[in-house]
Amino acid sequence: MTSTNAVPRAGADLSRLSLNQATTKYADLETVVAECVRAGIPGVGLWREPVAEYGLARSAALVRKAGLQVTSLCRGGFFTASDPGERAAALEENRRAVDECAELGTSVLVLVSGGLPAGSTDVDGARERVADALGELGPYARERGVRLAVEPLHPMFCSDRCVISTLDQAVDLANRFPADQVGVVVDAYHVWWDPNVYRAIERAGERIASYQVCDWVTPLPADVLLGRGMMGDGCVELARLREAVERAGYDGPIEVEIFNQELWDTAPRQVVDLTVERYLRHVW
Amino acid sequence: MTSTNAVPRAGADLSRLSLNQATTKYADLETVVAECVRAGIPGVGLWREPVAEYGLARSAALVRKAGLQVTSLCRGGFFTASDPGERAAALEENRRAVDECAELGTSVLVLVSGGLPAGSTDVDGARERVADALGELGPYARERGVRLAVEPLHPMFCSDRCVISTLDQAVDLANRFPADQVGVVVDAYHVWWDPNVYRAIERAGERIASYQVCDWVTPLPADVLLGRGMMGDGCVELARLREAVERAGYDGPIEVEIFNQELWDTAPRQVVDLTVERYLRHVW
Repeated sequence: MTSTNAVPRAGADLSRLSLNQATTKYADLETVVAECVRAGIPGVGLWREPVAEYGLARSAALVRKAGLQVTSLCRGGFFTASDPGERAAALEENRRAVDECAELGTSVLVLVSGGLPAGSTDVDGARERVADALGELGPYARERGVRLAVEPLHPMFCSDRCVISTLDQAVDLANRFPADQVGVVVDAYHVWWDPNVYRAIERAGERIASYQVCDWVTPLPADVLLGRGMMGDGCVELARLREAVERAGYDGPIEVEIFNQELWDTAPRQVVDLTVERYLRHVW
Repeated sequence: MTSTNAVPRAGADLSRLSLNQATTKYADLETVVAECVRAGIPGVGLWREPVAEYGLARSAALVRKAGLQVTSLCRGGFFTASDPGERAAALEENRRAVDECAELGTSVLVLVSGGLPAGSTDVDGARERVADALGELGPYARERGVRLAVEPLHPMFCSDRCVISTLDQAVDLANRFPADQVGVVVDAYHVWWDPNVYRAIERAGERIASYQVCDWVTPLPADVLLGRGMMGDGCVELARLREAVERAGYDGPIEVEIFNQELWDTAPRQVVDLTVERYLRHVW
């Protein structure tokens, strides 16, 4: 299947589409919300920093008034510090993030687990500290109607951002806790390469708290964090992955989250229109 | 375990060390060989292009006269083309690489499987074409005393260089063929992040044809191909991985292969001395 020949499947619509605000990073929240409404996108994924900048209660009111669903809040996590003070601070920060989820009306807190502490080679230890943190935060989150959504990040981020590197690993981790406390994020960008990904999605089942899409393009840019491409510009089998998460039981929002300097330098309206077009064409 | 505190284990010596010539990329073959002899490094990993440049028979004679073991030849592979002509050319090129191994006296042809053809999203298809090629080449290699050594590359190379992304996947692939035809390469750089790596090494067992080391350092450079660090400069548990491949039954050469512009810009003698020091300190 080549993406260039893909056409939208009959019946594809925007009812499950969510725009993660990082896709239009330089647009203020009012613009993001207005563009979603204009384009018929019913969901929006928010980030803590711009929400704090606009004001938490004000953000919640803005989105609610516009009739949008907040499909996730990015992000909590960074649980791998071995220093007790840093660790306590991270847990406290995550409790605040849970509270923000509750106020924004989303049940999904996306977690980026954290990398290796500086100078450390103990990846097993770091991974175990992630589990410890989930155990501590899970009940707090559940009481507030929020699920901790562990996102495996591409292995190229293992050392410095996220020691959870595969979906299978995220599912193993989540399975140690009640399903209403800890789920997983399936982000096509991070998992597409995994020879085991379809079995892992099947295993994930009800643990899937979010499905995110963008595309893998090469060459990677100097800052690999910004290497994500618009759907259809790369090599990820987005429709196949969507079908797999659906077979696993997930029928929730599909969030478009793209970190890409060229898109960020494009007018938000144009990005939103392109997102809609590519979503219908490549995700369905 | 932090690498800064590591000290060489009692009894560590250079008897298993091999210098892959890519580590001193700009040094000519005579210099590489002379430096290995001077430093007491008994093995050398060669690349086809510089060998061809110096002359195949001449390279073989030079290394033999110096008493060095050729521990591997890099590289064959690039099996994923769907075009029949390109595919036939790749197979023919690999037969030549096998012949070169035989002449150089090494039983290990390192294979980089190839990425997705331009415009393709069919990663399963590409992976299956790798298997087909191994089936075609295996008997030819065995007849010449050469084993095809499938190297899983870090998933960040999946789309453009190598659709074989985990050691488990490489082992599954190798297991479809006789063990004397197809083995696997364990390169610490490519597999260290894998939460399943120790089980995969155990499974690999006699399939392990080569163990290669360097270190994972961040940030990744603009060209991620050149992101490898000297042992001890990064976060890879090199001694733990070596112990695991030994438990799995591998007692062969340990090849140092580092693509790093800063090292390439350093005098070969200095690189070789640093390699020896770091090898003793961090691999053992």
